[in-house]
Amino acid sequence: MRFTSRTSSGGVTEQLFTLTFTSGEIPGVLWTPEHATGNRPLILMGHGGGQHKQAPGIVGLARRFVEEGGFAVAALDAPGHGDRPRSAEQDRIIGELRTRLQAGGEVTPVVASLHSLIAGQAVPEWRAAVDALQELDQVGAGPVGYWGVSLGCGLGVPFVAAEPRVRAAVLGLNGAGTSAEAAARITVPVEFLVQWDDQLVPRTASLALFELFASTEKTLHANPGGHGDVPSFEQDSALRFFARHLN
Amino acid sequence: MRFTSRTSSGGVTEQLFTLTFTSGEIPGVLWTPEHATGNRPLILMGHGGGQHKQAPGIVGLARRFVEEGGFAVAALDAPGHGDRPRSAEQDRIIGELRTRLQAGGEVTPVVASLHSLIAGQAVPEWRAAVDALQELDQVGAGPVGYWGVSLGCGLGVPFVAAEPRVRAAVLGLNGAGTSAEAAARITVPVEFLVQWDDQLVPRTASLALFELFASTEKTLHANPGGHGDVPSFEQDSALRFFARHLN
Repeated sequence: MRFTSRTSSGGVTEQLFTLTFTSGEIPGVLWTPEHATGNRPLILMGHGGGQHKQAPGIVGLARRFVEEGGFAVAALDAPGHGDRPRSAEQDRIIGELRTRLQAGGEVTPVVASLHSLIAGQAVPEWRAAVDALQELDQVGAGPVGYWGVSLGCGLGVPFVAAEPRVRAAVLGLNGAGTSAEAAARITVPVEFLVQWDDQLVPRTASLALFELFASTEKTLHANPGGHGDVPSFEQDSALRFFARHLN
Repeated sequence: MRFTSRTSSGGVTEQLFTLTFTSGEIPGVLWTPEHATGNRPLILMGHGGGQHKQAPGIVGLARRFVEEGGFAVAALDAPGHGDRPRSAEQDRIIGELRTRLQAGGEVTPVVASLHSLIAGQAVPEWRAAVDALQELDQVGAGPVGYWGVSLGCGLGVPFVAAEPRVRAAVLGLNGAGTSAEAAARITVPVEFLVQWDDQLVPRTASLALFELFASTEKTLHANPGGHGDVPSFEQDSALRFFARHLN
């Protein structure tokens, strides 16, 4: 893990890094409280499809987790996103998705294929990132949280199922199509976001994914509006959820 | 409105009162911060079926609203509950409900009839209670919130629809059977509780009621477990919801 830049503003230090892994060079970003020393819980954030590690929705929420919760927060570019090249297979599935979106065809199975393809690569990368981040003085081997919606949920479900260091997860804006088997292996507390009028994820598929989690504590938050219309009070709720489960 | 007792503990003053109304003498309770002076938002709480104005779930949450939110909180015995006699019609419907529960019959329409019967009497009583409570020095003519689940939702939906002084409502554990028409007239922010494995309210009926609210801001919180298993963190959420909308 190699840090390539460091800036601080508003009490938050942002460091870009590159993680060298078997799958290549993975660009990431770490946010910590300025002048942080000593261990603290780490929250890993998974961005949405077509976004990247520094998409505004990721940076804004990451800074709140640091400022208001005192957490360390990290995000990586998902395979084929941000500064990372797309594979030929990813290009092919995205082409198929575009065609179906234009023709009004059934997109759910194509999205599920895309998420499965990316998850197969991302899950071991994220586990390696947790290994590397927990070696830092200002992070340490404490509890880990995961936040990810849409693609970040499609990849997050198999990641959370595979990674025992994750103690709590905020997931959502995704359906049971992608990762039903992994969802049924999740037992940590989950806060799950549903957009009631989501144009990309059928409501029944969202409710079916929530149903699958084996967690004793799982809570579904549904709000009106489309895929991108999650209300800002859900940020407050995610912050409190992580504070309750990681501290 | 006649106060009959006054006690204080833990910073909260509890006063029992009787409201004289066309439908008879209505027993109620008012909780306010000890030594409160000046106006504050009022939260009206509707208890569940078979419960009363001082059921433990009502008193516990009412005290939190006062201690942590600085609100005034009031509860009334619903018609046929607590210290109030049941009507012959209410007795008849409750008998029918017991018979069906024992025989494994369809209870939803019977519960809906019972709630409709009680709501017809309760809604004007609660509106009169708001009139009387807002004349008190330590309450005043500020915004009103409503909290009620199960029967408290069955009665609360027509009350919130009818009463323009109500600015925000926490409702839940009830389905669309009782009050679909009234639900569609509610436009204030609603936080709606669903128990995912509710043995009394079918999940589809709960989701259908949430769907009906005309509110721009409405948020559904679903948690695993039966009718009585709402997790305690939903109390924290209700407190924050009212703080956001009534202050």
